[in-house]
Amino acid sequence: MKILITGFDSFGGEKMNPSYESVKKLPDKILGWEVVKIEIPTVINKSMDKIVNNIKKIKPDVVICVGQAGGRSCITPEKIAININDFAIEDNEGNKVVGEKIQQEGDDGYFSTLPVNKIVEDLRKKGIPSDISYTAGTFVCNDVFYNLMYYVKKNKLNIRCGFIHIPFVFEQVVDKKNTSAMTLEMITKGLDNVIRTVIQNETDTKSNLGTIC
Amino acid sequence: MKILITGFDSFGGEKMNPSYESVKKLPDKILGWEVVKIEIPTVINKSMDKIVNNIKKIKPDVVICVGQAGGRSCITPEKIAININDFAIEDNEGNKVVGEKIQQEGDDGYFSTLPVNKIVEDLRKKGIPSDISYTAGTFVCNDVFYNLMYYVKKNKLNIRCGFIHIPFVFEQVVDKKNTSAMTLEMITKGLDNVIRTVIQNETDTKSNLGTIC
Amino acid sequence: MKILITGFDSFGGEKMNPSYESVKKLPDKILGWEVVKIEIPTVINKSMDKIVNNIKKIKPDVVICVGQAGGRSCITPEKIAININDFAIEDNEGNKVVGEKIQQEGDDGYFSTLPVNKIVEDLRKKGIPSDISYTAGTFVCNDVFYNLMYYVKKNKLNIRCGFIHIPFVFEQVVDKKNTSAMTLEMITKGLDNVIRTVIQNETDTKSNLGTIC
Amino acid sequence: MKILITGFDSFGGEKMNPSYESVKKLPDKILGWEVVKIEIPTVINKSMDKIVNNIKKIKPDVVICVGQAGGRSCITPEKIAININDFAIEDNEGNKVVGEKIQQEGDDGYFSTLPVNKIVEDLRKKGIPSDISYTAGTFVCNDVFYNLMYYVKKNKLNIRCGFIHIPFVFEQVVDKKNTSAMTLEMITKGLDNVIRTVIQNETDTKSNLGTIC
Repeated sequence: MKILITGFDSFGGEKMNPSYESVKKLPDKILGWEVVKIEIPTVINKSMDKIVNNIKKIKPDVVICVGQAGGRSCITPEKIAININDFAIEDNEGNKVVGEKIQQEGDDGYFSTLPVNKIVEDLRKKGIPSDISYTAGTFVCNDVFYNLMYYVKKNKLNIRCGFIHIPFVFEQVVDKKNTSAMTLEMITKGLDNVIRTVIQNETDTKSNLGTIC
Repeated sequence: MKILITGFDSFGGEKMNPSYESVKKLPDKILGWEVVKIEIPTVINKSMDKIVNNIKKIKPDVVICVGQAGGRSCITPEKIAININDFAIEDNEGNKVVGEKIQQEGDDGYFSTLPVNKIVEDLRKKGIPSDISYTAGTFVCNDVFYNLMYYVKKNKLNIRCGFIHIPFVFEQVVDKKNTSAMTLEMITKGLDNVIRTVIQNETDTKSNLGTIC
Repeated sequence: MKILITGFDSFGGEKMNPSYESVKKLPDKILGWEVVKIEIPTVINKSMDKIVNNIKKIKPDVVICVGQAGGRSCITPEKIAININDFAIEDNEGNKVVGEKIQQEGDDGYFSTLPVNKIVEDLRKKGIPSDISYTAGTFVCNDVFYNLMYYVKKNKLNIRCGFIHIPFVFEQVVDKKNTSAMTLEMITKGLDNVIRTVIQNETDTKSNLGTIC
Repeated sequence: MKILITGFDSFGGEKMNPSYESVKKLPDKILGWEVVKIEIPTVINKSMDKIVNNIKKIKPDVVICVGQAGGRSCITPEKIAININDFAIEDNEGNKVVGEKIQQEGDDGYFSTLPVNKIVEDLRKKGIPSDISYTAGTFVCNDVFYNLMYYVKKNKLNIRCGFIHIPFVFEQVVDKKNTSAMTLEMITKGLDNVIRTVIQNETDTKSNLGTIC
């Protein structure tokens, strides 16, 4: 069994992006599953193209995309991807999509098929702050999340997938007023734990994919 | 032409709910449209039953539900209703629904068919703080919003509808630390303005209902 | 009996400053006292010079300075002025004083001689959110507040004085994310109420000036 | 040369207090100085009595008190202690002092004699978020800080002293909404760094004690 996990390169003037920094620190095997880690660009379309190419090549059972939500205080699995791009800033190649549907034929929203409640519960048990988020924003993170759910559904793939937002790391906020952060170590430990929860839940609920939460 | 607008009774230990307090102060006619104002209970099912009964009786062209999002600093039209109830507190009759779908056959999310971007833009021009919200929560507000969108879609009704969240009023926060509020007058003026935007947009875009935003 | 109340002109890129906007709307008489209202510049030294000139000319029994603390959610009487200037931005004439004592001979801090607890209590009773603040910052507001307390103490004047911070007004935050504000009417009503509390307390406690709070 | 550093026991319903947890992890020697670590109770008077006894016994050159400011996002050296107790909650022996001066003969405020700006600057260079705070509250933390500054000044002791507030640790906020925290390791590393800055500054500025910042 295989899991594909992605992190973004840096954006918005930040020098680094802890999403891929933490993803690349994950072990190559967790609970017997192969963990394939890739970096994707913070660029509309190119990010999803790279994911699709890797899904075709690797044939994963689970895909988890990880992005940064600067300012949040904890690790937040996203509940829903929505069918709109409305960028407040440019992506890394200067694209700024305002008020457009992502997929003309897509539903307004798609729920994550990861066990988001269980992920939160398990992280808290490990002493890692976590909460469900009901909005992944309207920038590249939500775009990738939405396109991933749409692609899997349209092609009737048996892949469980979703999106996890992580906070800033402390290095990014040394002189920011009242801004929450985590250590890279805690984020990495958190993502390791997320994968464990997903794997254990995968085994348990294979028969009724999509009805969790 | 008719608009049906609803506000909730008070909940969560608050003595009043400015959502119906402001709704009931609206004029009976705006730009030639009849404005029908009703109070709905902060109770699952009963709230939606009352809305359905009034839709059947009044046959409105537009339905706007208004609720309170205590702690927000501005008037927030909601972009999307999601198919989940996950109450953190009990409703006014002691119901606490945790982690359940609202409609087994419903989509994961439905976009508001109100012109949410235009509403925000017009409110700001009037000096009233406003922003789009991408989450209406998982309590009775979202439940009513979701059921309304589902009912209109399932029955193929030609009704434009959506949900507006309003902040606390100052009386509710006199001794709360760092909590935003508005005056009832500004909220009422804001809702009056929301109705004007919806009416003017209704006239303009009747032919392509649902493609706005 | 006379009260001198001051407000600032605008600073920090804002188009208006509700501190003087609200001060100038106050009535000329409150509870039989004469209310003298002046605007002071957001400029170090010049602001205090204008206050000193007016104290000499008007001979007030009470001096209240009002300034804006953008982002606060309520009206906050300041408890203490501190002997340091540490500007994060330039004042309106380009001065930026970093890490310097205001008065070489002054104490580290001086308490307001306004009845700050009573002011908060009375405002809340009127439905106006209020709280004590224990920091007036390290910019021109604190500089004026400190110099005022120092001047009155050094010259052994029988003047009760202090500083009140007010929030943004709504016009200033229409497109700011999650930023609290008030209406100019509520701020003006609040300052009117502050003056009433000070006058009533003045009469009651004339004999033990300085021991309140 | 010796430094005395104190941390509190837990209060306000929290199971642990990272202030003493981090203090006790500090090494016994830093840059050749002896580091004496003691726990003090979150109880008015008893806390200060224990500090005075230890000052007499240990004869330290520097005293640093460390306390928790739950909700802050970074390590905050306090600039000023103020002459008022105004407890919002009871201390650990049920005392709740409301609106009373700490020392009848004391000044309204006393500045820390630690190099607070340099502490912040050095912490940020190490990647640890830090900022100056201008209010230590009105509970036991400020009471201890004020009494310490007063005691040293009144007895004309050549001791440099001050107060450092630290955030929650992650274990304390696993299920708190939007609440910042740090790891105990980062707090301990931060305090170690604070001591280094104080020692180096002590050596540099011995001749003009009290004029820093």
